[in-house]
Amino acid sequence: MRYVVGIDLGGTNIVAGTVAEDGSEVVGLVSEPTIPELGADAVLSRIVKLARASMAQAKDKEIAGVGIGSPGPLNTKTGVVLLTPNLGWTNFPLRDRLVDALGLPATLDNDANCAIFGEWWRGAAQGATHVVGLTIGTGVGGGIVLGGEIYGGVSDIAGEIGHMSIDSTGRRCKCGNYGCLEAYASGPAIAARAVEGIEAGADTALPGYVNGDLSKITAQIVYEAAHDGDPYALDVVHDTAKFLGTGVANIVNIFNPEVVVICGGVTLAGEKLFAPLRSEVKRRAFKPAVEVCRIVPGNLTGTAGVYGAAAVFIKRTWGRL
Amino acid sequence: MRYVVGIDLGGTNIVAGTVAEDGSEVVGLVSEPTIPELGADAVLSRIVKLARASMAQAKDKEIAGVGIGSPGPLNTKTGVVLLTPNLGWTNFPLRDRLVDALGLPATLDNDANCAIFGEWWRGAAQGATHVVGLTIGTGVGGGIVLGGEIYGGVSDIAGEIGHMSIDSTGRRCKCGNYGCLEAYASGPAIAARAVEGIEAGADTALPGYVNGDLSKITAQIVYEAAHDGDPYALDVVHDTAKFLGTGVANIVNIFNPEVVVICGGVTLAGEKLFAPLRSEVKRRAFKPAVEVCRIVPGNLTGTAGVYGAAAVFIKRTWGRL
Repeated sequence: MRYVVGIDLGGTNIVAGTVAEDGSEVVGLVSEPTIPELGADAVLSRIVKLARASMAQAKDKEIAGVGIGSPGPLNTKTGVVLLTPNLGWTNFPLRDRLVDALGLPATLDNDANCAIFGEWWRGAAQGATHVVGLTIGTGVGGGIVLGGEIYGGVSDIAGEIGHMSIDSTGRRCKCGNYGCLEAYASGPAIAARAVEGIEAGADTALPGYVNGDLSKITAQIVYEAAHDGDPYALDVVHDTAKFLGTGVANIVNIFNPEVVVICGGVTLAGEKLFAPLRSEVKRRAFKPAVEVCRIVPGNLTGTAGVYGAAAVFIKRTWGRL
Repeated sequence: MRYVVGIDLGGTNIVAGTVAEDGSEVVGLVSEPTIPELGADAVLSRIVKLARASMAQAKDKEIAGVGIGSPGPLNTKTGVVLLTPNLGWTNFPLRDRLVDALGLPATLDNDANCAIFGEWWRGAAQGATHVVGLTIGTGVGGGIVLGGEIYGGVSDIAGEIGHMSIDSTGRRCKCGNYGCLEAYASGPAIAARAVEGIEAGADTALPGYVNGDLSKITAQIVYEAAHDGDPYALDVVHDTAKFLGTGVANIVNIFNPEVVVICGGVTLAGEKLFAPLRSEVKRRAFKPAVEVCRIVPGNLTGTAGVYGAAAVFIKRTWGRL
């Protein structure tokens, strides 16, 4: 049994783990904050340190290579990260720098692609023919896995499902477009919608969760208040479900997938989110497409990207998973 | 050189032609109205008659089989049309009935898939790696061709791009959803939007094109008035371009395709439509995805579905095109 180091590089944290080639286990799971403001070289050093720490914990294992998932856009063939607003990188040859530092072959793919590929390989979408997924955090990423392969489009940019407009004259998105799913359903967007309602006079206990400092309201706090039964927080979660449901209905009509998997912090809201989300999809999408599609939360919490980055290496290097 | 009869079954017309296996020519192109109200058996007889008429014109050619494109949803494996509101059919075994009547092997696929596959094989998207297309007529159909294969999803329903909501609280669509692209950009939707504006007092010469009978306004008449320089008709075309541009921007962000091909009557509006459509996509979609994508009108006017239906037969039967 060979092992592959999977690395999930995010704007906030880096996670690394050493994954068995059959996906049966991940050992040496380690994590550190990214601290992108220290610059690309400092982040690279941190990635290398984490990879080494993971491999050290996985001693006795034969390590065949490294797979890394990074925010994009990027070029999977050249291994170069073209531009990442969150990390502040331009044309950074991440893959080859890793190869040089670790003395191991490496592959690079988009972080959201890796997360959904991980969920397809060993998670909630395991073995499904066609899977489309969303990763909901600071942004809304997307990944498309068709017939067991990541679908990357003609230039590795495909899967930007978070930047599907569901309201052509809606909220301005950071990407410049209007009404993107991300502008409603990312963590910060959920918090912003909650705060807007409070400022407009909503009757809610939410301010009490942050000692009256509305700038401290996060999506997580909204879920917490919803679990505590706050009707306004429940409304915000319900609205999130409706927005996501519109987006997922579009995905169901366009891709006719076997599974739509939704990953990230938003899954903390549990059935309070997923029940109205599934209703909304059922109300909007074509019945025969809805009937064959499961809409599920990811279940590789915190490790989907690690599994998926390793899976990309395995698939590209050995041609199978 | 073998030949294959391609049949494009629409709600209004049936078109058949006999296509060379290398796509170099179509001979014996024939067409008749569908007249769906006469029932499935009558439509089938008409299809068979047209196929025979096409083959008769293609005498001396070796005919290897028949490919047919039909409105769906349908099952490409069993050859059964499950449900077509436009034709009024339920579970009609179209493929096998054709095989029995013509004594030739046959294949069945969705009409919009066939049209876009035809444009990929021999039309405006020829040879492109990944193509997504729209067919705009009574409805807005969609077809997805990835790596030279029609992408059908897990149950042949994929590609319903016309039923992507671009405005979650927008116009009600016949499918039950709200804000579908079809509810803005189909032929009847374009006409309906034009009439609504006239009824609300728009200053336009359009009523003069229909002797004051607004129920006679069609999308074609709107394009005609736009070509004649009527500012309101130009507005309606421009709005259509903005709606389509929102939808195409979503496609560009999701699929990162090499070509988006737009087929059907709407292409009659020419650059008056395509120039603002491309601007809207550029304004909304990710720049690196826009830069690698051509947005073009289909160029197999009236025959894309015939070419594509034949291409489906060729690909499925002989494994190549």
